[in-house]
Amino acid sequence: MTGDRPGADTRPAAVDPGRRITLAQLPLRPELVGEEPYGAPQLQVPVALNVNENPYPPSTRIRLQMAEAMLEVARTVNRYPDREALGLRGDLASYLGFGLSADNVWAANGSNEVMTHLLQAFGGPGRLLLAFTPTYSMYPEYARNTHTGYVTVPRRDDFTLDADLIVGAVAEHRPDIVLICTPNNPTGTRTPVSVIAEVCERVDCLVVVDEAYQEFAEVPEDSALALLPRFGKLVVSRTMSKAFALAGGRVGYLAAAPAIVDACRIVRLPYHLSAQTQAMARVALAHSREMLAQVDKLRDQCQQVQVWLKAHGFEVVPSQSNFCLFGRFLDRHAAWQALLDRGVLIREVGPAGFLRVSAGTPAEMAAFRDALTAIRPDHPVAAFGEPIPA
Amino acid sequence: MTGDRPGADTRPAAVDPGRRITLAQLPLRPELVGEEPYGAPQLQVPVALNVNENPYPPSTRIRLQMAEAMLEVARTVNRYPDREALGLRGDLASYLGFGLSADNVWAANGSNEVMTHLLQAFGGPGRLLLAFTPTYSMYPEYARNTHTGYVTVPRRDDFTLDADLIVGAVAEHRPDIVLICTPNNPTGTRTPVSVIAEVCERVDCLVVVDEAYQEFAEVPEDSALALLPRFGKLVVSRTMSKAFALAGGRVGYLAAAPAIVDACRIVRLPYHLSAQTQAMARVALAHSREMLAQVDKLRDQCQQVQVWLKAHGFEVVPSQSNFCLFGRFLDRHAAWQALLDRGVLIREVGPAGFLRVSAGTPAEMAAFRDALTAIRPDHPVAAFGEPIPA
Repeated sequence: MTGDRPGADTRPAAVDPGRRITLAQLPLRPELVGEEPYGAPQLQVPVALNVNENPYPPSTRIRLQMAEAMLEVARTVNRYPDREALGLRGDLASYLGFGLSADNVWAANGSNEVMTHLLQAFGGPGRLLLAFTPTYSMYPEYARNTHTGYVTVPRRDDFTLDADLIVGAVAEHRPDIVLICTPNNPTGTRTPVSVIAEVCERVDCLVVVDEAYQEFAEVPEDSALALLPRFGKLVVSRTMSKAFALAGGRVGYLAAAPAIVDACRIVRLPYHLSAQTQAMARVALAHSREMLAQVDKLRDQCQQVQVWLKAHGFEVVPSQSNFCLFGRFLDRHAAWQALLDRGVLIREVGPAGFLRVSAGTPAEMAAFRDALTAIRPDHPVAAFGEPIPA
Repeated sequence: MTGDRPGADTRPAAVDPGRRITLAQLPLRPELVGEEPYGAPQLQVPVALNVNENPYPPSTRIRLQMAEAMLEVARTVNRYPDREALGLRGDLASYLGFGLSADNVWAANGSNEVMTHLLQAFGGPGRLLLAFTPTYSMYPEYARNTHTGYVTVPRRDDFTLDADLIVGAVAEHRPDIVLICTPNNPTGTRTPVSVIAEVCERVDCLVVVDEAYQEFAEVPEDSALALLPRFGKLVVSRTMSKAFALAGGRVGYLAAAPAIVDACRIVRLPYHLSAQTQAMARVALAHSREMLAQVDKLRDQCQQVQVWLKAHGFEVVPSQSNFCLFGRFLDRHAAWQALLDRGVLIREVGPAGFLRVSAGTPAEMAAFRDALTAIRPDHPVAAFGEPIPA
């Protein structure tokens, strides 16, 4: 072809061959080839109930204090931030209670990074992470990024877990870390603290309890945090993204023995938490009562939508979080798209036939119910127990 | 002992055995055992010239705009941030020039995280990173955290690099990534763009040029960025920590072919850049002329202190950055401590006998010169070429 039209095809490449290189021509790690960047679609829609965000932004008073904090931060932003983030970690410990202090708490840019630090310290090549599916879809990403093996064992049919199931899975797979999400994303299923305690007694590996949605549970104080004095290999992960309405602020944290925090400190990149993130999170924590007041509303919305969905013939997984898995649609993607066409974005996730809706404001939930009612005739659900065609 | 004093020793453990677990009792990865968290001491001192920070904070006008940006960000901080950070990446591309656009730029929480993304995509187990020592002490940390092999080859005696040295080292070690820091930390040594070009022509691996201090070079426009149209496997890394006086803001970035950016997008954790970080960085970039005006002053200070140090009998490595390596003290730690005792904190880093001082304000540099003059009689330096006792 070059012979036919000399120069015609090669010229653009000669102008900019560097920028035109393709991913296939680059030495990407083989296990990443064909992978897509993780994440739900970020679409502009009237009603976004897809990523379990808190629909209530901070009040004007809190926003003004955040702005004041930024003004102060900027005064010294030419200097590196506090590498240990001790002020923030102390505030997080105070918020959690249970007698915890700053040396029990580690914080990072989202629980994403907290989990990565844990896997860098205690996972990695030749080591194994065990989780119970269906569960949070980021877990395999954490494992992949840290070269940690990832194995899953199914939850029971109702998505609950008991100690025998967990301990049996640990005995079978011998993981270095077992990860229990409670309330579990995307099912909303809670695992009782008594089960966590029994697991900690019977296994020797690290037990990581992801309590990202704990504040939305019926009894938020009924937390694995209570077990920390008894079990040195227990880690409880939390986030400010949900109950604290700070998804954009990117602050996740964990509570554990100081030795586990020390392990995270070894693998963290220095100055991982910016000055503005530390300052913003501390403003939110200083107003935790106000920030958390909305949690009660969202818990109510989540309970109400579960009742409504059941009353309207949907199968509903009992949820103790700010989201709810329902279905089961014979064609869930079509149902998801039909809702989106009506301006309501929810999430296509979880076992076959299910969709997940986040708890929003009363107006958002009304819009969701209206849209669902409208699409219902064209998008049938399966009878209870009836399999969904693949 | 328990028999002698029943309960006496076991009681504290029984109260809180979990929190008392030690790192030695935890399954930390073997290669991390005995490691310390990375970082220079964070001490409160009158004159801090130890971590190459820019001594000039943003002006009141810029600070107010950052606060306004925070007020706006907080309005929607309950929602996840723009996962692609396209606005910020576009602004960074505009700042860099060279015809770059947002799809050529990747940004993360400090160049720490940018380098980690590169190593997650193109390094990892079974792969090798090559660097030229003495160089930035974080590089082996990036390699360790990503399980990438790390091999170093010494620079020439004057700390410069030429193409034959680099290409020879690549031929010998067959790395997947070769990393060239220019101006090099901690020596300040520049590697000419012509050398980078020749290397890119002669090797097939990824070539990462760390230009963290490029704005301080004599001719900042003389950058490896100019080579991007020619070489698809070239990556140029930059930071806002130094010239932009945003060390506390934690924004690093790279420029490369869009396919390299796509590889980073695959391994990045979703929403890695918070809404407040994106907003703050964009305010700084909107005032790049003002933020960069201080760079000229710092370049001058760095040149002046080199002249002064040479005039006072110190050995000085010619630097094109905002720091300078000088010595060689027979006991550099004692000299470092003696300066610290006088309130001047610099950095004990680099080859034997050397200390590194960052360019500060004229007052800070005067304090440094005074302190150094005062301690000089008690802290002798070696004659040129004389070895330093180990």
